[in-house]
Amino acid sequence: MDQRPLGVFDSGLGGLTAVRELRSILPSENIIYFGDSSRVPYGGRSDEILHRYARQDVRFLRSFDIKAILVACGTVSTTALPLLQQENDLPIVGVVEPACRRAATKTRNKRVGLIATAASVRSGAYERGLHAVDSEITVISKACPLFVPLVENGRIHRGDIVIETVAREYLQPLKEQGLDTLILGCTHYPLLEEIVQDVMGPDVTLINVGQESAWEMKRTLERCDLLSPDRVGETTLYVSDRPQDFAVQASRFLHHEVHDAVRCIDIEQY
Amino acid sequence: MDQRPLGVFDSGLGGLTAVRELRSILPSENIIYFGDSSRVPYGGRSDEILHRYARQDVRFLRSFDIKAILVACGTVSTTALPLLQQENDLPIVGVVEPACRRAATKTRNKRVGLIATAASVRSGAYERGLHAVDSEITVISKACPLFVPLVENGRIHRGDIVIETVAREYLQPLKEQGLDTLILGCTHYPLLEEIVQDVMGPDVTLINVGQESAWEMKRTLERCDLLSPDRVGETTLYVSDRPQDFAVQASRFLHHEVHDAVRCIDIEQY
Repeated sequence: MDQRPLGVFDSGLGGLTAVRELRSILPSENIIYFGDSSRVPYGGRSDEILHRYARQDVRFLRSFDIKAILVACGTVSTTALPLLQQENDLPIVGVVEPACRRAATKTRNKRVGLIATAASVRSGAYERGLHAVDSEITVISKACPLFVPLVENGRIHRGDIVIETVAREYLQPLKEQGLDTLILGCTHYPLLEEIVQDVMGPDVTLINVGQESAWEMKRTLERCDLLSPDRVGETTLYVSDRPQDFAVQASRFLHHEVHDAVRCIDIEQY
Repeated sequence: MDQRPLGVFDSGLGGLTAVRELRSILPSENIIYFGDSSRVPYGGRSDEILHRYARQDVRFLRSFDIKAILVACGTVSTTALPLLQQENDLPIVGVVEPACRRAATKTRNKRVGLIATAASVRSGAYERGLHAVDSEITVISKACPLFVPLVENGRIHRGDIVIETVAREYLQPLKEQGLDTLILGCTHYPLLEEIVQDVMGPDVTLINVGQESAWEMKRTLERCDLLSPDRVGETTLYVSDRPQDFAVQASRFLHHEVHDAVRCIDIEQY
């Protein structure tokens, strides 16, 4: 048993899809969330910059007495996770490994697709993760750089020709490769689940990386005897810029209104 | 006469539309360009963050022996220009004032539109600039947050339903206001000139802020006796992340191939 909070971070709003899953799977846990809204988006940046950002994000979360960290950012998970795990003496869970394990279980024809940011695709982390579970899996990847800005601008609904056109352009070539499982390798993408499923068709299984990483966090806490005692857990939200905007958008990702103030910190100090 | 280079900066690629104009108007000048590609986009950030970024950008350019600065970023021009001018003892030209003067000359019905990033619209700088020239002008503003990511992803061509749909959504309400002049208040937007003109119709005059600021720079250099002697000027490009990607995209903005290496610097050191 351990009453200390969990730390969760992402470049911006996307990681809240993982917080939503954590809230449902681990309702007793206190969660401290950091969204790096002053430096979003991470997806197009170099590894060098991403390592610096990731270290600062972790240092900020560790300024609280946290017991574990969920890296709810696909880009950091694919480019900086081993580095963070090596440098920190607490459990750190990313989004790649749990999603790869689930995808390997689900696929029947061993053809798995991946959509993610440019940095995540470039890293090859999902390919490595899938091949670690099953070396016979063929991985078909596609960077989708417009998905994050479109989601952050609320273009997530069926009938919106903008998101539907962009989704078709990105996904049609994947569909033609005959995959039966598709990893949504960015925590923004669960908001596009309907849109993506419409293009891919009902026979393709979508893997939500936020959901899988939340389950992995539960297993990790159980294994390390770090679960919280029974109570109603709380979520505290921090950002590095424009907390008002974040509060408005956060409700869309969390599926409930954000009433408490979102607090703003200067991440360059960490 | 002054042989020293001009400094030009922007959050990313957009400022190159101003460089293109400078090259054509002031072919003898050497230009040092900085695109802050590690922290792009600026348009959604708070004033506090923007002030810090702008100061760092200027400090980097001043690490060279430059004679003047063109702030080829609409967002910095609207939120930090007086601050930069106060803190630096060399001419600094922004994009707002020259564009406002031109728009005030062009409008016949005194109804002027402005499209720009969220930060630029929020600043009210264009309203103030237009009213300083003519207090009877009515200004109709619209933030267009998806234009920058769409331009950076090459969605700039007629027949692309994505950019055409987004442009129509942003611009139709402006068109209905009966304006006869529209300021493209972000240096990315000249790449959307055709798309914007198609929606607004042929009777609306578009003001290109990069072009107007380049003319303003020429007038400033003449006035201060800082023009370069006759020669073939050179442009040197610096960025803060992913120089390879920048070189590829830069040719689209400059309308010619970028052959020389784009150099990468760590802007956080400034």
